[in-house]
Amino acid sequence: MINSKLPKIWYGGDYNPDQWPREIWQEDMRLFKLAHIDVASLPIFSWSLLQPEEERYEFGWLDEMLDLMAKNGVYACLATSTATHPAWMAHRYPDVLRVDFQGRKRRFGIRHNSCPNSPTYRYYSRRLASKLAERYKNHPALVAWHVSNEYGGSCYCENCTRAFRVWLQTRYGSLDEVNERWNTRFWGHTFYDWEEIVPPNILSEHLSESDPTRTAFQGISLDYQRFMSDSLLQCYIEEYQAIKEHTPDVMVTTNFMGTYKPLNYFAWAPYLDIISWDNYPSNKTDMSTIALRHDLMRGLKEGQPFMLMEQTPSTQNWQPHNGLKRPGVMRLWSYQAVAHGADTIMFFQLRRSRGACEKFHGAVISHAGHEHTRVFRECAELGKELVELGDALLDSRIHARVALLFDWENWWALEFSSGPTVDLKYLPQIEKYYRACWNQNIPVDLISPAMDMDKYDIVIAPVAYLLQPGYAEKVEEFVSQGGTFLTTFFSGIVDDNDRAVLGGYPGELRKVTGIWAEEIDALFPDMRNAIVISEAFPELAGNHVVGLMCDLIHAETAEVVGTYATDFYAGRPALTRNRFGQGWAWYVASDPEQGFVDRLVRYLCSEKGITPILETPVGIEVTERHKDGQTFTFVLNHNADSIEIDLGTDRFRDLLTGKELTGKVKLGGRDLLILRLQA
Amino acid sequence: MINSKLPKIWYGGDYNPDQWPREIWQEDMRLFKLAHIDVASLPIFSWSLLQPEEERYEFGWLDEMLDLMAKNGVYACLATSTATHPAWMAHRYPDVLRVDFQGRKRRFGIRHNSCPNSPTYRYYSRRLASKLAERYKNHPALVAWHVSNEYGGSCYCENCTRAFRVWLQTRYGSLDEVNERWNTRFWGHTFYDWEEIVPPNILSEHLSESDPTRTAFQGISLDYQRFMSDSLLQCYIEEYQAIKEHTPDVMVTTNFMGTYKPLNYFAWAPYLDIISWDNYPSNKTDMSTIALRHDLMRGLKEGQPFMLMEQTPSTQNWQPHNGLKRPGVMRLWSYQAVAHGADTIMFFQLRRSRGACEKFHGAVISHAGHEHTRVFRECAELGKELVELGDALLDSRIHARVALLFDWENWWALEFSSGPTVDLKYLPQIEKYYRACWNQNIPVDLISPAMDMDKYDIVIAPVAYLLQPGYAEKVEEFVSQGGTFLTTFFSGIVDDNDRAVLGGYPGELRKVTGIWAEEIDALFPDMRNAIVISEAFPELAGNHVVGLMCDLIHAETAEVVGTYATDFYAGRPALTRNRFGQGWAWYVASDPEQGFVDRLVRYLCSEKGITPILETPVGIEVTERHKDGQTFTFVLNHNADSIEIDLGTDRFRDLLTGKELTGKVKLGGRDLLILRLQA
Amino acid sequence: MINSKLPKIWYGGDYNPDQWPREIWQEDMRLFKLAHIDVASLPIFSWSLLQPEEERYEFGWLDEMLDLMAKNGVYACLATSTATHPAWMAHRYPDVLRVDFQGRKRRFGIRHNSCPNSPTYRYYSRRLASKLAERYKNHPALVAWHVSNEYGGSCYCENCTRAFRVWLQTRYGSLDEVNERWNTRFWGHTFYDWEEIVPPNILSEHLSESDPTRTAFQGISLDYQRFMSDSLLQCYIEEYQAIKEHTPDVMVTTNFMGTYKPLNYFAWAPYLDIISWDNYPSNKTDMSTIALRHDLMRGLKEGQPFMLMEQTPSTQNWQPHNGLKRPGVMRLWSYQAVAHGADTIMFFQLRRSRGACEKFHGAVISHAGHEHTRVFRECAELGKELVELGDALLDSRIHARVALLFDWENWWALEFSSGPTVDLKYLPQIEKYYRACWNQNIPVDLISPAMDMDKYDIVIAPVAYLLQPGYAEKVEEFVSQGGTFLTTFFSGIVDDNDRAVLGGYPGELRKVTGIWAEEIDALFPDMRNAIVISEAFPELAGNHVVGLMCDLIHAETAEVVGTYATDFYAGRPALTRNRFGQGWAWYVASDPEQGFVDRLVRYLCSEKGITPILETPVGIEVTERHKDGQTFTFVLNHNADSIEIDLGTDRFRDLLTGKELTGKVKLGGRDLLILRLQA
Repeated sequence: MINSKLPKIWYGGDYNPDQWPREIWQEDMRLFKLAHIDVASLPIFSWSLLQPEEERYEFGWLDEMLDLMAKNGVYACLATSTATHPAWMAHRYPDVLRVDFQGRKRRFGIRHNSCPNSPTYRYYSRRLASKLAERYKNHPALVAWHVSNEYGGSCYCENCTRAFRVWLQTRYGSLDEVNERWNTRFWGHTFYDWEEIVPPNILSEHLSESDPTRTAFQGISLDYQRFMSDSLLQCYIEEYQAIKEHTPDVMVTTNFMGTYKPLNYFAWAPYLDIISWDNYPSNKTDMSTIALRHDLMRGLKEGQPFMLMEQTPSTQNWQPHNGLKRPGVMRLWSYQAVAHGADTIMFFQLRRSRGACEKFHGAVISHAGHEHTRVFRECAELGKELVELGDALLDSRIHARVALLFDWENWWALEFSSGPTVDLKYLPQIEKYYRACWNQNIPVDLISPAMDMDKYDIVIAPVAYLLQPGYAEKVEEFVSQGGTFLTTFFSGIVDDNDRAVLGGYPGELRKVTGIWAEEIDALFPDMRNAIVISEAFPELAGNHVVGLMCDLIHAETAEVVGTYATDFYAGRPALTRNRFGQGWAWYVASDPEQGFVDRLVRYLCSEKGITPILETPVGIEVTERHKDGQTFTFVLNHNADSIEIDLGTDRFRDLLTGKELTGKVKLGGRDLLILRLQA
Repeated sequence: MINSKLPKIWYGGDYNPDQWPREIWQEDMRLFKLAHIDVASLPIFSWSLLQPEEERYEFGWLDEMLDLMAKNGVYACLATSTATHPAWMAHRYPDVLRVDFQGRKRRFGIRHNSCPNSPTYRYYSRRLASKLAERYKNHPALVAWHVSNEYGGSCYCENCTRAFRVWLQTRYGSLDEVNERWNTRFWGHTFYDWEEIVPPNILSEHLSESDPTRTAFQGISLDYQRFMSDSLLQCYIEEYQAIKEHTPDVMVTTNFMGTYKPLNYFAWAPYLDIISWDNYPSNKTDMSTIALRHDLMRGLKEGQPFMLMEQTPSTQNWQPHNGLKRPGVMRLWSYQAVAHGADTIMFFQLRRSRGACEKFHGAVISHAGHEHTRVFRECAELGKELVELGDALLDSRIHARVALLFDWENWWALEFSSGPTVDLKYLPQIEKYYRACWNQNIPVDLISPAMDMDKYDIVIAPVAYLLQPGYAEKVEEFVSQGGTFLTTFFSGIVDDNDRAVLGGYPGELRKVTGIWAEEIDALFPDMRNAIVISEAFPELAGNHVVGLMCDLIHAETAEVVGTYATDFYAGRPALTRNRFGQGWAWYVASDPEQGFVDRLVRYLCSEKGITPILETPVGIEVTERHKDGQTFTFVLNHNADSIEIDLGTDRFRDLLTGKELTGKVKLGGRDLLILRLQA
Repeated sequence: MINSKLPKIWYGGDYNPDQWPREIWQEDMRLFKLAHIDVASLPIFSWSLLQPEEERYEFGWLDEMLDLMAKNGVYACLATSTATHPAWMAHRYPDVLRVDFQGRKRRFGIRHNSCPNSPTYRYYSRRLASKLAERYKNHPALVAWHVSNEYGGSCYCENCTRAFRVWLQTRYGSLDEVNERWNTRFWGHTFYDWEEIVPPNILSEHLSESDPTRTAFQGISLDYQRFMSDSLLQCYIEEYQAIKEHTPDVMVTTNFMGTYKPLNYFAWAPYLDIISWDNYPSNKTDMSTIALRHDLMRGLKEGQPFMLMEQTPSTQNWQPHNGLKRPGVMRLWSYQAVAHGADTIMFFQLRRSRGACEKFHGAVISHAGHEHTRVFRECAELGKELVELGDALLDSRIHARVALLFDWENWWALEFSSGPTVDLKYLPQIEKYYRACWNQNIPVDLISPAMDMDKYDIVIAPVAYLLQPGYAEKVEEFVSQGGTFLTTFFSGIVDDNDRAVLGGYPGELRKVTGIWAEEIDALFPDMRNAIVISEAFPELAGNHVVGLMCDLIHAETAEVVGTYATDFYAGRPALTRNRFGQGWAWYVASDPEQGFVDRLVRYLCSEKGITPILETPVGIEVTERHKDGQTFTFVLNHNADSIEIDLGTDRFRDLLTGKELTGKVKLGGRDLLILRLQA
């Protein structure tokens, strides 16, 4: 996908020359060269400069900048600048301003501040994108389009209210159907006229000022979440189309934010030519969680390489505590992105802003303004390496035999519900099963419920609370053909309108799992139970602590693998597997600690002959990318200290050092290898 | 009181057939029979179905349901459905929508959402109640009326503002009197025109977004609380009157919520024919606290049996952690209600809703939809027992010689005040003195300040901060006639407008207690003092830790029983008793730990010859109900394990098993006895 | 300054006779005499009484009161009563009501509730002040004017919005300049019309409902803070001028609140004839922190004595836990104020209000209403002592050789910024360096950045994040002349519009400190590092724990005194000093524990020959006031128990007891000495 003008791992990032005088522009070109920076994203937030009045556009400064970049070998990831409307627009057309969750009309300020259903915003954002595309369609610097920035948030204004009613009409056809889907007979909420429907926020159905997930009516809140994700998507699509009219062959993206809850990125992905995303872990984020986010982004377009659009070279500013990335970490995490499928390494930001919100966010060029800093040196060294790597890794792919189901709608619904416990959150469950694979260097794909399962040996679907229509059938087909499916407690509970299944949980998954969950116990935070597994399963045997929730299940056709250790349901099934056709469907009825999940996943994998890419000590991450019959093995040492790795009997060449390696090798702290198997 | 159509402990609960198709109605009748369910509350939230348009009412489906119930021996606790206005009404008549504490006009959503002073709401709610009463007055299924549902919340709209001014005019006559009562010269708040008075909320007198009790002007906030309780009561009364016009002989109730702060249930009680309430403890709620709530509900109508209108058969959904009721707990807590004066056992809900807020709230019939569940079986077994019990216990009464003062207005005022400490809350003080009685199986009545004291030997009034007019005189009369009165620190401080007494605390109680509280010390959470009592009072002797607050008192006519152990007031009185006429008035100047309160209460009781109904091990609760010369002794084992109880030399028959029992008997975990003394 | 009518330490406080009937007035005069109270502040909150209608004023009751006071030897600190507008004014002229941070128009309630840019408020507050001044200009009781009360808070209404634009025009001249200063090119915030600028609050630039400091645009928020402080100041000035027209020779003040963040008291001070302030520590406030607040108030007018306008004689009501002042504490803290420069001791309040918010705030006269209380007795004893002290201490001054920089604008900016860590707060840093002096009885002046440094030997400027224009030059001059300057991590970062310096931190301080801070590391709360200092500096040698933030600095011309102990910057400079002309500039690159700051300050002082006034045990505070060649040494024992102090070989006379003292003397718990050196 990466534009042929620049056939290497792109290196650069967000750049805001409009904040700086001309002499700095020249100096920046010099510094970019020193750092081997070859791509800059701009202008991200320049709407007010590009369109200073309603009927006046000013592109001169941008012409100048782009020409300068072209002259200096810096390519442009050209942005449409529509993530903040101009102040004059807010003043003249208040419909661009959002109404917030508290029902308050906002005034001009911050960013990402436009109502997605504002006619003014829609019209002028599309017009700006169109003008930019028309003007720069043939510019030599142009390599990609960057629409708006980090779409997100929500609005509850009258325009959104009206658009929501239309969205409902389109989705459900009739008000009767809406009433049925939302179960509005509950609490006497039946609607007799579309006009009676108002957005679910703190003034209507929601219950907590501070936690927008606490809703009294899950049906309407779930649909409003879908609608809001769709509304923002429509903003994106309109710009996308405007651009494509002029540059049909230049790839278009917008930057995502990993596990960002409000937007269903799986629904967005088809409208992006390439996925790009912004990676902002804290210094305390688990390495496997960063890896998960990369894999989720890669999964959006079923394995197609993605762009690492933003990361900080050194520090962030908006976390509670913004520590520095320790020496080597920026390089290591950059390659971690590549190891999971990225084909670019880009920063926010190339030059640090002087004033306002992000002045303490790290940048390649600091406020000191020169190259004599640790951070610049590390950036320049990485830039040099990337030049040397050339196109070797470009467009290579990752092969996974294990898939993890990720469903934004399930996430929304699960956390909208009132009960059984406020401690149940979606991400920690996903992270736990992902980590089990990561801990043993087993590649995983993150897939949506709509995606194909058949290419995997194992599909894991933690807390699959909301089942999409037809999903259970796909599972049955997958398992009957020999696949291993694993799901957990509190799965198969509701349909896609959050209506509980009747007849017994886990509803449509009951047949394939062979169990019936009669009751669901929520544990207080200080309560624990355990799963007891006998020596009949030596790989799993023992007493394994569980908490959070316990499904009280009956094994109908399933085999009982483990039972509860205590409480009034001691001895009842806690872990089962069901033979279904050629495969097995597992059910984990509670929430075990990480150690047991690791063992369970290892067992399922070993049954399928799936083995780690490499057996490594703790803190070492190993992935593979494949291309043209070649395999590139990434061995990343997340530890601060050096460590010995056993590469086995094969002979490899390390792409970074050019050295040939085999057997036991020493890997420095926060260092890595990119190994190519030698003939 | 219980309707003669159904002379037994009613068994059933909330039922929402309007959420289900006709075939489920038939199935429900079958299941009700299996579970011996004989009463259903309905339709609780069906206003939008009953009145789909302003001038159209639809009763057909309800006719059908009630006929079906009658045919199947299920009686109706017929509800008026006015706890949620229809969406069309909110859309057409926005005056039904509340303005919240933050001053925001709400939009349609949730429930209990109607402004109590909305003319539209008043008119249509009364009209619906009237139509229902007229239509079903002779229906064979009708046994009781259930007005609205769980009245509560508050409103600050313009209609309420105007109604508040009228309420003030009625109560105080003149604006001068209002200024005087509220002490408006403070901070220059003098009002010269009724129009200047606005509701006390976060936009005017209140100080905290999150804590509505933090007010700058207690006088106005206290009156607004009274006004809001009265406004909601007026809504109830209007429906009550509408119903009584048609069915003067059918009892009418609305379901209360135990220690629900916003409504002064003592002021409401005269307008209910029978008290009913919803019992929703968490799995961590202290057993004595549940008992206290039952006793408070029983006390509202001075001992008349009440209805347990709602409880969950298994789990709730709105608590942070909604664990299951362990096997036996539903039955045990059902009988606990009866043991404290309930004549019905009813659930929310008979069939679990499919969608929206309460879909994870337990029900007799689960989403599985059949009888083959633990919960259904337990319900059915209890239903069978209740049939066998027949009318034996109906209308029996509890005799208590100890009374505990409970005053909603004191509760409000105490927590509105700024200082001496945010840690002072009313309920924990009430619970502590109640628990002292409960721990030793001594029956207690909860009484209002307006009720008669004379039938008691002991009256306990913890933190009687606000004294109602005339109350102190009643105390003097009571004590002078030989009664024992106990009050505690921070009592007798303000009048019923929260104006401090002048001349010395505890004001009107000073004479009877014989003490003067010169100063009040508030302790930091990590500070403790102790009450030291010498061997002159062997039953009380020792050093007893206290905290929270310490009144620095002078014994004027009182005898010093205990003194402070430390700090600059070491040696000064901490516990006193004052001989006043024939009785004693005790003053506990600080907040002792539970153990000492237990000892103190035991001592007061022993002086009056009040002894435990039965001496039992920890976790055993014993109560008595009396009727026609018979005594029914309830012995409830709240422990999970079986335990030995000594019944003494009397011979009893257990109503549940029919067995004759005497001396030491073994009582199973979470099991109970209902003993009738044998001749 | 103290009015010659009453040449002694004034003794009295806030008095609200308008809340009481006439017979209480007479009783109060009797009680004031008993307590030697000779000054009363009134009427603080009587606007609604003084102006009951728009065109009617009622001064009769005040005439009567003032005459009564004059007759009884009680002087008046006459207040203008404008801190709460009347309810009728709010009703008739809603422009007096504020719009809050959430954008909500407030309604009548609480106090300090007037919009500072309301034309109505400005007009009527000035008119009232003028009328009072005209009426009482020759009243014998008048000794001072007390304008309004505790100015504070903020407003975001349309009047303020317009006034803010005018304020900006005045300050910056052009919109281009505003755009430049606020760096509005960031996030595309460029303004093209003054009308586009809206106040920064939760509806525009601010990010947190609960924390008003979390802003997205520091430039606008910082200027709005300045504007709001100026707006309230303008309210004060208008009343001040109105008063001065009638009584040019009577001193005018308004009561400040110590380290109150919203108002830049240094900017206010020139407009007050004398500083007065309200001292409300909690019982857990560090003694040095109370001392710091006194010294800051004294510093506002460069050492001129101030008024202790309010303190509680016993307890407060608005703290979470309002414990009593232990016996002796009121007297001790009263003298502590004098020891730091106060020439009055005044209370809130003389008589406790009956009702509303402050009824539980302590007073000289309690609700009991008589003199037979501990608190009254302590007040009366102190009153007697003050009579005996006469004018001995009046107008004496404190001489400090150490100054601590205190800059409200730095405080605002530092906490508006996003990053590096939420744990960085200004006051704890100021308190830490102040405490280092206090712990060793070394006097300190608090100075503004505009004040003269030259009279000090040492100037300490903790986290001087925002540098005022020209300040660095003053530091260079000061150090070059031999002064010792110390600053810390995160200093010299931004200009007075919160724009980061370019070229290297600490910007303008780089030359004098001789260091360059390349990076700034923010530590998680559980992280620590240490400063290692060798035996080359024996007074400082050791490993000293640091946390919070670590600047990674280069010593350019500076000498490295200490280095980091650990992490990737181990061995790099952590404490430096730079020889600059005749003096030294120190840089503390991280946040050490108190113990090391104490040692460091002691070392700097010893280099300058600055020694403790007296070496004393822990808990003893020593200060000196000087006058006419005499020195008054205050020795305050904050310990509850008596302790031995060594006065050395000099001979002193204690002004309180008249005793002659020398050598070792025993000082009672919470007792004090005021020593005058004997010839």
